[in-house]
Amino acid sequence: MYFASDNSGPVLPEVMTALADANTGYAMPYGADPIMEQVRARVREIFEAPEAAVYLVSTGTAANSLALATLVPPYGTVFCSPVAHIHEDECNAPEFYSGGAKLTLVPGGDRMTPDSLRATIAKEETRGVHGPVRGPVSITQVTERGGVYSLDELSALTAVAKDFGLPVHLDGARFANALVALGCTPAEMTWKLGVDAVSFGGTKNGCMGVEAVVFFDPARAQEFELRRKRGAHLFSKHRYLSAQMAGYLTGNVWLDAARRANAACTRLADGLRAAGAGFLHEPQANMIFATFPRAAHRRLHEAGARYYLWDGTLDGADDEAVGCRLVCDWSATEANIDRFLELVRG
Amino acid sequence: MYFASDNSGPVLPEVMTALADANTGYAMPYGADPIMEQVRARVREIFEAPEAAVYLVSTGTAANSLALATLVPPYGTVFCSPVAHIHEDECNAPEFYSGGAKLTLVPGGDRMTPDSLRATIAKEETRGVHGPVRGPVSITQVTERGGVYSLDELSALTAVAKDFGLPVHLDGARFANALVALGCTPAEMTWKLGVDAVSFGGTKNGCMGVEAVVFFDPARAQEFELRRKRGAHLFSKHRYLSAQMAGYLTGNVWLDAARRANAACTRLADGLRAAGAGFLHEPQANMIFATFPRAAHRRLHEAGARYYLWDGTLDGADDEAVGCRLVCDWSATEANIDRFLELVRG
Amino acid sequence: MYFASDNSGPVLPEVMTALADANTGYAMPYGADPIMEQVRARVREIFEAPEAAVYLVSTGTAANSLALATLVPPYGTVFCSPVAHIHEDECNAPEFYSGGAKLTLVPGGDRMTPDSLRATIAKEETRGVHGPVRGPVSITQVTERGGVYSLDELSALTAVAKDFGLPVHLDGARFANALVALGCTPAEMTWKLGVDAVSFGGTKNGCMGVEAVVFFDPARAQEFELRRKRGAHLFSKHRYLSAQMAGYLTGNVWLDAARRANAACTRLADGLRAAGAGFLHEPQANMIFATFPRAAHRRLHEAGARYYLWDGTLDGADDEAVGCRLVCDWSATEANIDRFLELVRG
Amino acid sequence: MYFASDNSGPVLPEVMTALADANTGYAMPYGADPIMEQVRARVREIFEAPEAAVYLVSTGTAANSLALATLVPPYGTVFCSPVAHIHEDECNAPEFYSGGAKLTLVPGGDRMTPDSLRATIAKEETRGVHGPVRGPVSITQVTERGGVYSLDELSALTAVAKDFGLPVHLDGARFANALVALGCTPAEMTWKLGVDAVSFGGTKNGCMGVEAVVFFDPARAQEFELRRKRGAHLFSKHRYLSAQMAGYLTGNVWLDAARRANAACTRLADGLRAAGAGFLHEPQANMIFATFPRAAHRRLHEAGARYYLWDGTLDGADDEAVGCRLVCDWSATEANIDRFLELVRG
Repeated sequence: MYFASDNSGPVLPEVMTALADANTGYAMPYGADPIMEQVRARVREIFEAPEAAVYLVSTGTAANSLALATLVPPYGTVFCSPVAHIHEDECNAPEFYSGGAKLTLVPGGDRMTPDSLRATIAKEETRGVHGPVRGPVSITQVTERGGVYSLDELSALTAVAKDFGLPVHLDGARFANALVALGCTPAEMTWKLGVDAVSFGGTKNGCMGVEAVVFFDPARAQEFELRRKRGAHLFSKHRYLSAQMAGYLTGNVWLDAARRANAACTRLADGLRAAGAGFLHEPQANMIFATFPRAAHRRLHEAGARYYLWDGTLDGADDEAVGCRLVCDWSATEANIDRFLELVRG
Repeated sequence: MYFASDNSGPVLPEVMTALADANTGYAMPYGADPIMEQVRARVREIFEAPEAAVYLVSTGTAANSLALATLVPPYGTVFCSPVAHIHEDECNAPEFYSGGAKLTLVPGGDRMTPDSLRATIAKEETRGVHGPVRGPVSITQVTERGGVYSLDELSALTAVAKDFGLPVHLDGARFANALVALGCTPAEMTWKLGVDAVSFGGTKNGCMGVEAVVFFDPARAQEFELRRKRGAHLFSKHRYLSAQMAGYLTGNVWLDAARRANAACTRLADGLRAAGAGFLHEPQANMIFATFPRAAHRRLHEAGARYYLWDGTLDGADDEAVGCRLVCDWSATEANIDRFLELVRG
Repeated sequence: MYFASDNSGPVLPEVMTALADANTGYAMPYGADPIMEQVRARVREIFEAPEAAVYLVSTGTAANSLALATLVPPYGTVFCSPVAHIHEDECNAPEFYSGGAKLTLVPGGDRMTPDSLRATIAKEETRGVHGPVRGPVSITQVTERGGVYSLDELSALTAVAKDFGLPVHLDGARFANALVALGCTPAEMTWKLGVDAVSFGGTKNGCMGVEAVVFFDPARAQEFELRRKRGAHLFSKHRYLSAQMAGYLTGNVWLDAARRANAACTRLADGLRAAGAGFLHEPQANMIFATFPRAAHRRLHEAGARYYLWDGTLDGADDEAVGCRLVCDWSATEANIDRFLELVRG
Repeated sequence: MYFASDNSGPVLPEVMTALADANTGYAMPYGADPIMEQVRARVREIFEAPEAAVYLVSTGTAANSLALATLVPPYGTVFCSPVAHIHEDECNAPEFYSGGAKLTLVPGGDRMTPDSLRATIAKEETRGVHGPVRGPVSITQVTERGGVYSLDELSALTAVAKDFGLPVHLDGARFANALVALGCTPAEMTWKLGVDAVSFGGTKNGCMGVEAVVFFDPARAQEFELRRKRGAHLFSKHRYLSAQMAGYLTGNVWLDAARRANAACTRLADGLRAAGAGFLHEPQANMIFATFPRAAHRRLHEAGARYYLWDGTLDGADDEAVGCRLVCDWSATEANIDRFLELVRG
């Protein structure tokens, strides 16, 4: 019963097989391996973007930080949600990679609104060389609270960015989970709306440690490669990054994994709802922020269930509501979910 | 016949097995996995350093840059060979991670001499706030030209550093190759000589992408962890870094792999010598810098052999000597070596 | 009728005289001039801090950025008001000098409250290596909206910082204006309350371009000097920085200048109040944020008065209230103030 | 008898007068002062470059670091002499401002040769993303050893840079001294030869603390301004930087000051030569590197003469030659020079 994070589950068998298959003989290092050729072609196919520049790195923070560093000068600022991973969970990596740029937080929650975004960008307007120059808007999809922007919502945000001539970055650590939730294509969720660069997550959805960075305008390519190397994120035995992504993107492996995770989440959320739980945020992909009585948390805790208490502690009155974060990955089992729900019901 | 680099070979079967074994159920992320506990204990055992701080990263450049960044302030300088990997092959990563420190090159070749090191350090002495402050000495073992410092040579270098009160970093991308060449223990090659921090390579010797950073004084631990995270080098599914290192360090796996690589190199060097080749540097581990007639290079090239031309090109007179770099990894086969030698002999 | 900023007025005659007096013969460069000895002694005397480290730089942004860079690691964060100069008006200089640290904004206005500060610091607590480590609290006195924290208010803020073991920086670009407003001593407003480092402004109060950075614990001295040099802020002809500060701190020159500026501000504020103006913030030093009818702004504008429209524009209905910022420096004249008030009254 | 440096002398009376004249009433801050308009026009006139972008900063290190930071990316390298000020005397400021770029030292002395420069640049060619990308060539005129490149020599260096498509920066901390030594125009010494950016020194030649940065292609303007602000080098009371430069550039003030310094240097060098002194470098502007017996140094030392011992110490045999550096500024007097020479002769 592990629902602490989708970064803690096992690797998809298809990815393990691809790694084993890649492990024969010699291969050119540093991204010149033939598997990377396939990956590049496959990512371009998936995104319907035959010119896109495609790079692999091993962590989501690297993908975000390197993508943003190519989009913002050191004297600029990135617009994002106050709970964005790039702000809250990357220990200043975007500031580091950009050479000291700022993150300007768009007031609100995990889900930026066009009005709040517009007002925030507009406010940076009048300070000349005194304030930072306006840089990219970074949107997280799935949001940090388990929400999924609709295409209309995304479009409204990118429209604001475009009004100001700013590039758009999509932090897609859970790209596939959002995609299957929306039932749209990668192109529809990205460049067709004006997204310029995507952190296309693999790790949380069943890879070992690989993320693609996709630029729809390949003009940034050389700079990205140099920044990646300078950041120590260019793998010598790069074929093993390529192989992971190749296995992940074979057929519908990646989409099926996300569907399993989302379905597990729905099963869990439905069960919680039926058990009377409240929801801090509406679960739309593979994350749940639920509240239920402390007594239930205690039962779960004693039974070894793992998840984050989000709001409250184990100490206190039995019937007081305590919030938690529950994340399902592709390997979540119905058995574990049902056992979890049983413990919630008491 | 691939002798271009030891970063292009396959992964050791023991490492692949460890990865497969680790791929079950959930594990705590970000280095809190139980396998990391084993790795830490095993590295401490190998180094006879029960207090050492041990961290894993996925590239050698990350290991070097992060280790150096904890040892040098942004207004300092690192002393190293003019052909050190940190200077020539990391696209300013040490400068980036240190926040703009300098590398001061010690005149000479791949092998620093105590006199040249001392003179170089001394020269930085008199400039007060105008010059950078003196920072760590970084020694590469195996050197970039395939040499192995003897323990006496290392000791003479660390003694110079200690005379000036400077810390010592060892770039051990080929640590195991040096170790088996010298026939000494890890402790004898490091902290017993005054080495403070080691980049302990795994990738080139049969891992997929993992290097340990070892600090014999654990006081730097918290800062390193924060710098690693900020550099986007903290893996969420960290168990797969741990598993690689665990498989690599099981019993003598790592030493045997290095012995195979070094033995292959010896076989190749002996054969080249017998064929009349010259040597730009004396091969002491798993790298050869040899010269032999262009005609032989042409035969090799046509037969599909892969290696770097180091000095000269394929165009020109047949009997002119052309230099090359040949590297053997753990998977080099006698058959390939013998075929290579046959082509050299013509 | 220039009330746009106190950074646009002339230099005090005592400072000009000190510069002229210093302009004879040779003097040791880079801070080794004898006048700097006097300045150091005088600053220590004024602060009753015989051990304090004292440095001069030429801009307030340099003072703030360099002071903060010695107090926060690159993986840390600085706590400040959302309208702090270091956040809004320094084009990422603190991020640059710190190597990519973050500024965490304490919700509220120009005047931080202990509760908001405590809550903000507390929130950064639980993210381990994922979030930045907590760094200094930076307090601006006079605030960016013309307020002056009382000693009790300052004490409550520094107490919060100390509860978390964090250092405190005071941005005293208008230090003297605050001091004379409170009628306390420099020691009472700084180290006696737990302030660790002060940007002690000179420029806005009548110098040409000089600010002192004062550390009450001199342990940071060497690092500051290296950072200042690396930041290109160490003057070769340093005596001319020293001379400005020496002239400024002679007797009560600096306090009298601040008293003149504050008195001018009071005269202007009283007149505005009498004329029916509103106040966005209570003026407590030498800055006013007032609202009065657009028609009055138009009269002022046509008569050549200079100041910032803060809230609103010149276009619109005559009787609508429009906000403005008015700043008085030491050279503001009663004649100009009275003429300004006349134009407000119409 | 002060010959330690031209950064230790007094300020030209014309500059002091300009400062006093500027000290009246209010002036727009941050470079929008009317005097800056005049300075910009005057610099463009002097350089015959009506489109040039012209900025002022207060230190030579700021001029160099900011100019270079606009010309080199963080993953690039700057080519310069091993004794260049940017390498030896700026405490990593260029590395800091560029975000971690490297300086690649061109083997040789203070005077780069086209062959050595070409070989050094060529060597950086083949490492793809592994090495830094090639950035600007920085030439110091007057060199750090008192030499003045002829126009032909400069032209040969810029030609090498242009062959590789690299921009050229001129560190002209002693620009005027070189100019009067060569008897050419500013345009002939800069853009007509392919120089792209100049650090145009004022401080060493009689200003208080001001240097201009001149870009002949104004396209870099906005970025420079943002970098200057971010580096805390934008003065609020900017008129006092402008006034210094305006006074300095009035008529022939700046050229006359350099002529006086160079003439003093010639008188000193001639006297030394007559007294049997040797020369480590041929003095061509206002710096001398001479050797004469230790006994003479002792006499000078006891008489209070100030200069750097460059090669050797005061302790040792009387008749042993000891090297020294002697610099003349605009205020050097014949009386002091003659007294100095008398002491040398003993």
